[in-house]
Amino acid sequence: MFTRTLEPAFYDTDALGHINNTRLPAWFEWARNDLFRLFTPNLDPRKWALIMARMDVEYRAELYYGEEVELRTWLTRLGNSSFTVTQQAWQGGRLGAQGNTVMVHYDHAAKRAAPLPEAIRAELQKHVQEPAEAES
Amino acid sequence: MFTRTLEPAFYDTDALGHINNTRLPAWFEWARNDLFRLFTPNLDPRKWALIMARMDVEYRAELYYGEEVELRTWLTRLGNSSFTVTQQAWQGGRLGAQGNTVMVHYDHAAKRAAPLPEAIRAELQKHVQEPAEAES
Amino acid sequence: MFTRTLEPAFYDTDALGHINNTRLPAWFEWARNDLFRLFTPNLDPRKWALIMARMDVEYRAELYYGEEVELRTWLTRLGNSSFTVTQQAWQGGRLGAQGNTVMVHYDHAAKRAAPLPEAIRAELQKHVQEPAEAES
Amino acid sequence: MFTRTLEPAFYDTDALGHINNTRLPAWFEWARNDLFRLFTPNLDPRKWALIMARMDVEYRAELYYGEEVELRTWLTRLGNSSFTVTQQAWQGGRLGAQGNTVMVHYDHAAKRAAPLPEAIRAELQKHVQEPAEAES
Repeated sequence: MFTRTLEPAFYDTDALGHINNTRLPAWFEWARNDLFRLFTPNLDPRKWALIMARMDVEYRAELYYGEEVELRTWLTRLGNSSFTVTQQAWQGGRLGAQGNTVMVHYDHAAKRAAPLPEAIRAELQKHVQEPAEAES
Repeated sequence: MFTRTLEPAFYDTDALGHINNTRLPAWFEWARNDLFRLFTPNLDPRKWALIMARMDVEYRAELYYGEEVELRTWLTRLGNSSFTVTQQAWQGGRLGAQGNTVMVHYDHAAKRAAPLPEAIRAELQKHVQEPAEAES
Repeated sequence: MFTRTLEPAFYDTDALGHINNTRLPAWFEWARNDLFRLFTPNLDPRKWALIMARMDVEYRAELYYGEEVELRTWLTRLGNSSFTVTQQAWQGGRLGAQGNTVMVHYDHAAKRAAPLPEAIRAELQKHVQEPAEAES
Repeated sequence: MFTRTLEPAFYDTDALGHINNTRLPAWFEWARNDLFRLFTPNLDPRKWALIMARMDVEYRAELYYGEEVELRTWLTRLGNSSFTVTQQAWQGGRLGAQGNTVMVHYDHAAKRAAPLPEAIRAELQKHVQEPAEAES
């Protein structure tokens, strides 16, 4: 599991006084930098090898500006050419949001999915975990 | 069904040369203004009556800067206090993304879900449609 | 002068209940699409010929969600290889924000400023106006 | 001077392959959290005491995804009720952008500027610096 801490910005809030729902997919993408580095160590976008097939977010509790957020990122599925990333945003000991993203290893030249290279699969395997473990 | 047209901005793109995935939840929220007006006709955030329980987006095809996007918004479920909004982003005759959002009618003072008022339910009912109809 | 209408999104607001200051540069970039088309008619980013040298925004009055915003865009300076775009955001007959952007015609291959082509300069010239005219 | 490090997100980029210009005002607002805490230690938006009068950003060099950015924040003017914040974004030893923001101490109830409280002024004074010192 990868964990990182984020300090919300004022622009992350909305007129209801808490973090706007559209910021969670953005925060989660930022936290996936740790996974992106396994595919493209220097994060050069010209060497990008992933696309996003789907994403979901469950909003469990309000998140606020003014307090740090812990983002947890791990894998809950590792397929042949795709995998599912599960992520959580915690604040003050409370789970604020949880989401899943299906990422596909992609050959941008051939415009089709490509099997995960073995070396990367081995790295990804280290971050596979049951959803329940992380939620407890 | 509500439809509206959006002209992408340059900042909607990312280094892969197309629309960044995090913009879809934002575009879809913008398109839900039509639904928000049924609950709060002048859109005054101090009278807000909805919260978001969950959201998902499926990315079907790349979306690009430089061409208008048609956003389609309808309901695929109408419950007692919540409903599911289904939305699509079309560009050049192609479905680029489809998503669902579960919205809950919420009493912000009591901090709990509240049944949908009958007048609003009647309006929402007019926008309930099968997913398949809209996709064809 | 180019004018276009924008309907604010809920995510444009912040916890103070109005439009967040960081949205104005984004809205203004979106409105510059009209100018970008003079340089790259199909808006293909691979054929981009402009870079941004500086930008300023003056915040004159609060802008709100729930009411349309009129964006006005014109030129207040037309130089050899650069020009200044002046933009305003009006809501309910009130000037909410005004900004200037210095754009440079840029040769991305040679990595240096390039003189404005005559045909484009002629088009830009039609949109040059004194700041005072537009503000009245 | 306040300094903080930011790791760019993929969504910060645009189709030109670098950081989009509209992200700088957002990054700078995030870095001003250190100043906001002097006014509202717990950052509760309901106790907010500042508004933004103007902002400018100069774009000096491209900023990229994949490398940390150092944000530097200090004051270059301290007036009776307002002050000017100067900020820089450095990446790989290069100044990528520099901006100024004029913040006004504001009485939201009375809807007018209010003199800076002495205790806060004393704190702000510690962060006043000439622009040249920070740029060297």
